[in-house]
Amino acid sequence: MPQLIVRGIAAEQMCKISESLVKELAEICECGTDNFVIDCLHVTSVFDGSVVETFPFIEIAWFERGLQTRDRFAKAVADHVKALGIPEVEMAFTTYREDSYYLNGERRFDSAE
Amino acid sequence: MPQLIVRGIAAEQMCKISESLVKELAEICECGTDNFVIDCLHVTSVFDGSVVETFPFIEIAWFERGLQTRDRFAKAVADHVKALGIPEVEMAFTTYREDSYYLNGERRFDSAE
Amino acid sequence: MPQLIVRGIAAEQMCKISESLVKELAEICECGTDNFVIDCLHVTSVFDGSVVETFPFIEIAWFERGLQTRDRFAKAVADHVKALGIPEVEMAFTTYREDSYYLNGERRFDSAE
Repeated sequence: MPQLIVRGIAAEQMCKISESLVKELAEICECGTDNFVIDCLHVTSVFDGSVVETFPFIEIAWFERGLQTRDRFAKAVADHVKALGIPEVEMAFTTYREDSYYLNGERRFDSAE
Repeated sequence: MPQLIVRGIAAEQMCKISESLVKELAEICECGTDNFVIDCLHVTSVFDGSVVETFPFIEIAWFERGLQTRDRFAKAVADHVKALGIPEVEMAFTTYREDSYYLNGERRFDSAE
Repeated sequence: MPQLIVRGIAAEQMCKISESLVKELAEICECGTDNFVIDCLHVTSVFDGSVVETFPFIEIAWFERGLQTRDRFAKAVADHVKALGIPEVEMAFTTYREDSYYLNGERRFDSAE
């Protein structure tokens, strides 16, 4: 279920690293690779009166997995992005609440019941 | 004010259900239909080295309304999406803080004062 | 680091106000102008069965800076947007957790250690 919501890195670039990256992330999260989503948003950025290149930023939207997993996850993503020749990337982890997550209209988790 | 932020379902598809869906959601939330926003993000998704279809996902960004309303809201959205012939959709509710929400530069709610 | 994530205002419009706006926001936040990002999302909105203009909405994703700074920040953004002839804009501030924010794979802050 971790979603990588990408701004400022082209989908074509993400394609190149997607297989190896998701495999490594699945190991870190101890889940299947088919739980992952990589969505590249179409964005136009502006600064100082001009359109500029979008700063590479990845939001990781997931359920909380703790600091250690987060650190390893962030490093895996950053190493892959760096291998594309992109010198800087920022990343923020945001968490979905389990009692507020639905699959086909049904709560996926029972914690709120 | 509930915002449906859609990934992986085309705007043309959402058009077909928007009127009936918003009417039902307004009843569930006991508010006017003009409080709702349906924004379809332009996204390119990748997986295993290729561009793939974006997994249908809807973030509902709103103010907390409790579990019962959330369950009904999620079911209404999922039923409408299913009627489009889309077999799976995931949904996450995220909450805005009332003291952090502004209309035309003014806080919309007094709770923080 | 404050990110202005814009829906419903064209990048060309945001260009016109970006220099003056970011200068004012940097003063309010007491940080450099190069900390700011203005990302305009590509969105198609629907309502009542039709594609409609996207309602102007700006998410401010940042680290919590307190109510007073938030109020001033919101007013500065709203005043600039109003100067474009856009009569209404809504804004929500969302906060990143410092222990969940990474630069090049390293946590940017030590608070979680």
